[in-house]
Amino acid sequence: MRMVDLIRKKRDGQPLTREEIRWFTEGYVKNEIPDYQAAAMLMAIYFQGMNRDEIAELTFAIRDSGERMDFSAIKGVRADKHSTGGVGDKTSLIVGPIVASLGVVVAKISGRGLGHTGGTVDKLESIPGYRTDLSEEEFINVVNRTGIAIVGQSRDIAPADKKLYALRDVTSTVESIPLIVSSIMGKKLAADDDVIVLDVKTGSGSFMKTEEDSRNLASILVDTGKKAGKKIMALITDMDRPLGVNVGNALEVEEAIETLKGNGPEDLVEVCTELAGWILKLADKAETIEEAREKVKSVIADGSALFKLQQMIAAQGGDPRVVDDFTFFGKAKVEKEVKAKRSGYISFMNTEEIGRASLLLGAGRNTMADVIDMTAGIKLLRKTGDYVNEGETIALFYTTNRSRLDAAEAAYEGALTFSDEAPVLPPLIRGTVE
Amino acid sequence: MRMVDLIRKKRDGQPLTREEIRWFTEGYVKNEIPDYQAAAMLMAIYFQGMNRDEIAELTFAIRDSGERMDFSAIKGVRADKHSTGGVGDKTSLIVGPIVASLGVVVAKISGRGLGHTGGTVDKLESIPGYRTDLSEEEFINVVNRTGIAIVGQSRDIAPADKKLYALRDVTSTVESIPLIVSSIMGKKLAADDDVIVLDVKTGSGSFMKTEEDSRNLASILVDTGKKAGKKIMALITDMDRPLGVNVGNALEVEEAIETLKGNGPEDLVEVCTELAGWILKLADKAETIEEAREKVKSVIADGSALFKLQQMIAAQGGDPRVVDDFTFFGKAKVEKEVKAKRSGYISFMNTEEIGRASLLLGAGRNTMADVIDMTAGIKLLRKTGDYVNEGETIALFYTTNRSRLDAAEAAYEGALTFSDEAPVLPPLIRGTVE
Repeated sequence: MRMVDLIRKKRDGQPLTREEIRWFTEGYVKNEIPDYQAAAMLMAIYFQGMNRDEIAELTFAIRDSGERMDFSAIKGVRADKHSTGGVGDKTSLIVGPIVASLGVVVAKISGRGLGHTGGTVDKLESIPGYRTDLSEEEFINVVNRTGIAIVGQSRDIAPADKKLYALRDVTSTVESIPLIVSSIMGKKLAADDDVIVLDVKTGSGSFMKTEEDSRNLASILVDTGKKAGKKIMALITDMDRPLGVNVGNALEVEEAIETLKGNGPEDLVEVCTELAGWILKLADKAETIEEAREKVKSVIADGSALFKLQQMIAAQGGDPRVVDDFTFFGKAKVEKEVKAKRSGYISFMNTEEIGRASLLLGAGRNTMADVIDMTAGIKLLRKTGDYVNEGETIALFYTTNRSRLDAAEAAYEGALTFSDEAPVLPPLIRGTVE
Repeated sequence: MRMVDLIRKKRDGQPLTREEIRWFTEGYVKNEIPDYQAAAMLMAIYFQGMNRDEIAELTFAIRDSGERMDFSAIKGVRADKHSTGGVGDKTSLIVGPIVASLGVVVAKISGRGLGHTGGTVDKLESIPGYRTDLSEEEFINVVNRTGIAIVGQSRDIAPADKKLYALRDVTSTVESIPLIVSSIMGKKLAADDDVIVLDVKTGSGSFMKTEEDSRNLASILVDTGKKAGKKIMALITDMDRPLGVNVGNALEVEEAIETLKGNGPEDLVEVCTELAGWILKLADKAETIEEAREKVKSVIADGSALFKLQQMIAAQGGDPRVVDDFTFFGKAKVEKEVKAKRSGYISFMNTEEIGRASLLLGAGRNTMADVIDMTAGIKLLRKTGDYVNEGETIALFYTTNRSRLDAAEAAYEGALTFSDEAPVLPPLIRGTVE
């Protein structure tokens, strides 16, 4: 087999075989295929696409390029949710405890954030003492004891994805459905879950800018998961608005705790209820989605979901008192009220830019070497659809470094669009793909 | 400027500016842009194409990436012909002396052959003593004294083309009109000619398989030359048949000499007459193409074109006696008669495969390190359209190494298609693009 022939084949619109896709993926991981040939292949895939069988084979080749989890020592139905990434998305911290409190096992390996989106592992590390680097034995013990653990990715999972993603990033081949799907599902399938619920974002804060693109992506993600024998579905949710009020690491954990206490903002509660509900349904813990939603409400109301979060924090070495007292998170040195520059309706918030403002305050990282300021971030006091008066406080900025405020405020103001008429907002949940 | 942004721009179908094209080409030559980004750009160009202004800018950037010839010390109108490559194409050895004998200056820098096509420089080196490595001073002296010199490319002409071509070869991006045009014209325009006549091949032996593709290529080549201020036109000629009878280095020089003596095969004479005629017309040595053709005939008939070739050979250190006595070329050790396996019309000859048979006999090189057997090659005694009887000798093979015969004969036989009906052959000259 010669790589130049495989590139030509894909360039000419012919599907690649299972053997060819494996040969390329394995050869690239072993550095037997040079970056320049892989780059030409990625661009050919960008233009010619892949059929669903090819996408599944590429996904499985990526999954099999490194270690695969073995959760056979974990009892019960294992489920995970995965979001395609958004701003202010703390749903994993809420949905995990909810479904765990209802008997679904959550053995979650999560990532760190880069650029304008945050990572669940970073957020959890804002809890004093919380360890995201459990050994495999510790991880399985915590899961078997509490029904839930969330750790970072320490092992060599899907190295093909790491190499391919780095190459896509510098060759303008990120926005390709086959490459997006195989990257997401290649990693996800290396975990050993029975149920997967996907949260496919749509809008300015995600890389699928239109609902049609998001539905198409969701459909192929679900198809690929099914080909791997998973129970899987996807929600299409709006990312034209940030989710919830708080953006930033400790701030988002605080909001997750408030939500599990029953005090969550409406949009966040709605998305979490749907995600948790669908997990319960696919895990056969509820007959219908309506029944599942009721169960979600009850474990929030009776405090059992909050207790599950506290149990997990304690089991992973974190200080469980944060649940009752947010001062244990520490406090940002600088707090700044951001005022509205004009009166009117907020008709649009560019969530990517809001993510960038939060990053500029210290809550994110530009490169993997950057250190995160755990207490930095933004509270969005006014959101899309709200009417504001000139001079009114619309957001609170938190940072340890006053010099960061100006750039962050400029980014934040650039993210807002005002109008005199009240905007018509589309539903938050745009639909499901089963 | 960031390469990743330029790749995205081209990927999304937007034209690149002059500055962007220069920045990419120069950065790639200086190794500031890595191969993998250049590979992604080439594949994006393959799919999105380039408009004529972009093609001209890429051509000029390639031209300017290395040394440019300065022929200001050469008197008279300078002309060159360029062929897109074919099998048995010895037209440069015939057209050059013809137009030089009519007062057009030929200061030609030519290439070596690779794969199934031969190079003019290789062919000339079959003449004992002939030097293709003249210094610039020697070169200009020979041209000013005799009106013609043909040398190899010793200087650093168009290094961007060398790098880009090597990358295209391994990334399946060879067959792209913008990349083909900029490669051909980038090198050609680094020479300092006034008139350029292109011979764009069409058919199985060339990389443009259809006449429409060839016309389109010719049109863009001519347009790019005009943008550089050249007098330029293109002939579209058939490469579904090999040109002339002889394939191989010394064999092709012998056939060129015979043609200048008035004994050339009809197809070769026709193509050379058109190429030389158009050079004369563009160089204002004839008012009409008909008048130009008559002049070509007269310098063959009166021996002045042959004398010009002999003058050039002598001026470049070669033995001028080869013109009168082919034994000075030496003789292949092994001569083999190839017989027809069946009776019938030869309805098609795959010229690429015939070139490969000649290469297998030792007349070509697979890599630039291979040494050519100058006396090896093939005489095509019967060609497309001829009726042959089973057992009749249809070709003569020449080689120094008997062990090469079997593979060459298999390739040769594979190149032939027979039919019971006489085939209808398209005209050899398919048209002109001015």
